[in-house]
Formats: sequence, C-alpha cells, structure tokens
Amino acid sequence: MRVKYEDMRREFERVLIKRGFTKEKAQLSAKLYADASRDGVYTHGLNRFPKFMASIDKGCVDIQAEPVLVQSFGFFERYDGQKGPGNLNAYECMRRTIELAKEYTMGCVALSNTNHWMRPGNYGLMAAAENCIGILWTNTVPNMPPWGGRDARLGNNPVVFAIPNGDTPVLVDVAMSMFSYGKLESYARSGKELPVDGGFNEEQQITRNAAEILKTHQCIPIGYWKGSGLSLALDLIGATLAGGRTSRMVGELPVETELSQVFMAVSLDKLGDAETLKRNIQETLEDMKTSAPVDQERPVYYPGENMMRIRKESMEKGVLVDEGIWKSVLEM
Amino acid sequence: MRVKYEDMRREFERVLIKRGFTKEKAQLSAKLYADASRDGVYTHGLNRFPKFMASIDKGCVDIQAEPVLVQSFGFFERYDGQKGPGNLNAYECMRRTIELAKEYTMGCVALSNTNHWMRPGNYGLMAAAENCIGILWTNTVPNMPPWGGRDARLGNNPVVFAIPNGDTPVLVDVAMSMFSYGKLESYARSGKELPVDGGFNEEQQITRNAAEILKTHQCIPIGYWKGSGLSLALDLIGATLAGGRTSRMVGELPVETELSQVFMAVSLDKLGDAETLKRNIQETLEDMKTSAPVDQERPVYYPGENMMRIRKESMEKGVLVDEGIWKSVLEM
Repeated sequence: MRVKYEDMRREFERVLIKRGFTKEKAQLSAKLYADASRDGVYTHGLNRFPKFMASIDKGCVDIQAEPVLVQSFGFFERYDGQKGPGNLNAYECMRRTIELAKEYTMGCVALSNTNHWMRPGNYGLMAAAENCIGILWTNTVPNMPPWGGRDARLGNNPVVFAIPNGDTPVLVDVAMSMFSYGKLESYARSGKELPVDGGFNEEQQITRNAAEILKTHQCIPIGYWKGSGLSLALDLIGATLAGGRTSRMVGELPVETELSQVFMAVSLDKLGDAETLKRNIQETLEDMKTSAPVDQERPVYYPGENMMRIRKESMEKGVLVDEGIWKSVLEM
Repeated sequence: MRVKYEDMRREFERVLIKRGFTKEKAQLSAKLYADASRDGVYTHGLNRFPKFMASIDKGCVDIQAEPVLVQSFGFFERYDGQKGPGNLNAYECMRRTIELAKEYTMGCVALSNTNHWMRPGNYGLMAAAENCIGILWTNTVPNMPPWGGRDARLGNNPVVFAIPNGDTPVLVDVAMSMFSYGKLESYARSGKELPVDGGFNEEQQITRNAAEILKTHQCIPIGYWKGSGLSLALDLIGATLAGGRTSRMVGELPVETELSQVFMAVSLDKLGDAETLKRNIQETLEDMKTSAPVDQERPVYYPGENMMRIRKESMEKGVLVDEGIWKSVLEM
C-alpha cells in the first residue's frame, strides 16, 4: 500500500502534537520519520514510529528536552542531549555542525546523553545539501560479540558519510554488524539463506542461516576481525569526544538510552577550490559506474544513487507502507 | 632468523645515508621501518625496504622533498607532500596534527601529492603516546572492484584509529579489502583456504580460494557492499580535504604516487575530563575481554594488544626477519 508523503507527515505531526510535542518540534520530527520512509529506509521511518511512541510512554525520552552546550572549543562543541528525542537532538547537532563548518571550514559537535537517532542518513543529507561533507556516528547498546568472543560486548555503531554531488549525493550509511537483527528476522521468516555470512550457529560455526544466528545472537562484524576493531574504535572515540557513555555503560541501563554521538562537517565552499573538488568527486562516481557488472542485469551503483530513485517514486506514486502499521498510526 | 632491533635500525640508516638522505631523515626513516618489523608488521618493515629503494631509483620519490603548507584554517592545515618519502611526510603531518590538537583540542592535516606511508600504525601510535586519539587514512591506486562490479575502481584505502590506553593503546589498522594481495599470495602459495570469503573466481562466484582470486583480481571489500561504500567515502573525503588526487586520478599515473591522506588528532588532556575518559576506555577494554571465547584456546584480544606482545618479544629476542631480504639489505 502507498500513502502520500504529505499525508504521512501530517499524521505523524498530529500524533506527536497529541503526545505533547510543540507544533514546531512535531513538524520536524514528523518530517524526519516521513523522509526515512520516503527514501526507502522503512525500518526507521513509519515502522519505527509506534516503537518511538512506546519509548516516550516508558519515560525513556524527555520530549521537551533540548541539547545543552557543555563545552566549546571554537569549531568543536560538546552537548548534553538531556535524553531528548534522538532525531531532534541529532538534527539540531548536525545543524550546528554545519554552521560551525561554514564559519571554521570544519565543524564538529559531540553529543552525550541522547536517544536513538532513527535514520542517520537524514543528517548526512543535511550536510550534503549545504555543500558540506558530513561524517557522523553513534554508539549503541552492546549487540555484537567482539571477534573471537561469544558474548555481545560491542555495539553495531552505525556510521554515515555524506558527500555532496548535486542532486544525487553519495550517502554511505552502514552499521558495523553485517546484518541488523531486523534483517535477520526477515530472512528467518522467509526461510531464505543470507546472501553472505551473517553470524555463528550453536556449534560456533559461521553460517548464513538467519534463524540459527537469532538463537545464538552472535552476529558478525563487517569484515570479521576488521569490523570488530572499527566498532570498538567508533564507540571509544564517540564516547570520549562526547564525554558520554561507552556502549558498555549504555548496556548497564535498563533500556538503550544515554548514547554518545559525533557529527562532523567540512564546507567545500570554504576550501577555496570547490569547483575542482566537485569535478573530482563527480568523475570518480562516473568512473566507478564503468566497472563491468558481475550480474549483467545489475549495473554498479554508488551509495545513495538508488535511494534517490526510491525517493522519486515515493513522491510520484506515494510512500510504500506496511498497511497494519499505517492503520495503527491512524488510530493513535 | 632474528636480528637485534638496533642493528636493523643502523643498517637501514646506513643504506639511506648512502642513498643521499640527510642523517636526520635517514635516522627517522630507519626507525619507522624497524618499528614496523619490531611490531610484527613485517610487510611494511624490512620486507618493504628494498621496494622503497627501488622506487627511489625509479624517481617516484624525491628524497629531499618535505611537506609544504598550502592553506591554513587554524586547527586544520593542508599540505603538499611534493612526492617526498611517504613515511617521512606522514610522520611530519602527524607530528603537526598532534601539535594542532594540543593547541586547539582537535587538529587535522590533509596531505596531497605524497607517497606510500608504509606502516600507518606508526603514526597512530604517535598520537596515542601523546594522550591523543589518532585517526588517519590514505587513498591508494584502484585495486578493488566496487560492489557489483568486476573492474577495480576503488582503492583499499587503509584507515587507522589509535586510542590512548597507557602502555597498550588500542590500534585499529585496517584496509577496506578483506585481504591484501600479499596475503592472498601467501595463501595461494601454501594452498590453504582463506578463513573467510576473499573475492570472486572466474565464474563470478564468491570464493575462499586465494589462487582463483589472484586470477580475477576481484578481491572483495570488508562487509561486501558496506566496505565498498566505506572505501569510496574515504577516498572522496581524503582527496577533497587534501585538495589532491582521488584513487581514480592516482590510477592515471604510471605508478602509485601523488596520494591523498588525512591525519586527525584529539587531545584528551584538552577535553577537561581526561581521567574519567581514560577510565571509561580502560573499562570497555576489560569488559570486552570477558566475552567467552569461541575457541577456548584463544581469548578475546583488543586490537593492538597482541602487537605489544610481539614488540616485547622482538626487543628481548631480536626482530624476526626473512633471511634473504635481510642479507640483501646488508649488501646494499
């Protein structure tokens, strides 16, 4: 089923206002949820909205809270997110990061004590739209074993890189686990094998059987030992910059909250050779697409390219929704 | 065969001075090569030294050149490496980055027009030794197909994260390809299967057979599509910050040179809560090691931990060397 983007936004806004959000914040939050679904990131758009409402009800999110400046080092600022809504906190920090980048060439904001930021690509795209490179990451609750271990000690710590390229920026948005638990569940339901290794089975062997991985909860990092190191580094650097909780410390809490996040931006316009830089980026992307495809039916895409096609389709035909979830929102 | 660390340093220094390096630069370069072998990174220590000599003979490296400041934005500076020796250029840029971090909390140097930096972990460890987080990466010649493609369009673009932790800092030093060509060759020679997927065979199927991957030259990125995106992002961001060549542009040259690199550092001492940050890092590392091992014989290590054990052994018993390569250096 498809729903008009504007209808989706309006519904989210209505529910959020009913829940006590100010009109301005409800509008922004609604836009961020609707944008995720519009761009094909269904898991962190409509599908996540009811869970967000539940987390407000549980008192994990303070809907009135806003990030508060803790320390300023010029181009680099530290904020306390005060357990505010994760998407609004992240939006505000990225907005401020871009502002800093436009003043200092590079800007950085580190945020402690925040909640799940939902779809991080939204904030990366904010940077690209302002002709800035965007780099951002978050830590999470421990949900992945370190390489060589069986018990979860690392987060999957999603990271985003956004690079301006006119209407179709590069958007790399990846977690450090090979597959999210949501993806594993969907493969397990369908009975299909994962396309590549996803985790360990009960015999401690690497497997593509999603159902078996859901039993052990031993998903694997991207690049095995490599992603294990990357995940650790993102957590330690993020928490250090933010002066906030590491994944380990988040794991001490009853629910996933008080996360640490980092936002960076670089303004291409401030670098002085913006036209050359723009052309170099464009030529790399064009060149990449000349690589002969492994599967003749599937040409090489760069990250973000396909998303822009989904967005166009969503705006023309409506945003694809899970009918059950959409109806539950209408009834909220 | 094992060789005393000091003997190795002295030999490298002798050869470099003979080749025209100033005493000071020869000492530093010799130390960087010897340190790599000492820490177990044999591929970029002694084993790489003869290749470095050859690249000087071919005129790819200007041994007198030093990085020249191109643009300054306070905490962020852009340098032209002038095709100087890659390790000395990288050392100087990391040194300057740390200096900037100590002044501004965070420092960044982007370097264009440089050569292979040999073992990047050396520069990460410089940051950790100064109680700074170190983040650095380089682009390379295209040596890896983008996900979905058959022809190399991406570099493997190694990235390093170093995090201070007393005598045993965290050191994540990973390329974006699952295995280096050196590693693939060593597996092919031994006839052993790769421990995990490494690339495509001629039937365009993912394989663990190193010899088959060496035929197609289609190695795979870490995390498949994920590492493909990460590699692209590192290249575009690195080249943009440096105002230098992208991997595609490096591929236009007859040899791999004129690379782009980025160095970042964050001074923990400037953040104001250094003791808390230090404890949080330490506790995460201790916690990680409590994850029950998959293989009872192999406890969980954090990246860098094992390296410190190898270093200790090298200093006590001598540095492990390939006898043939060592003798060739003695004869230089």
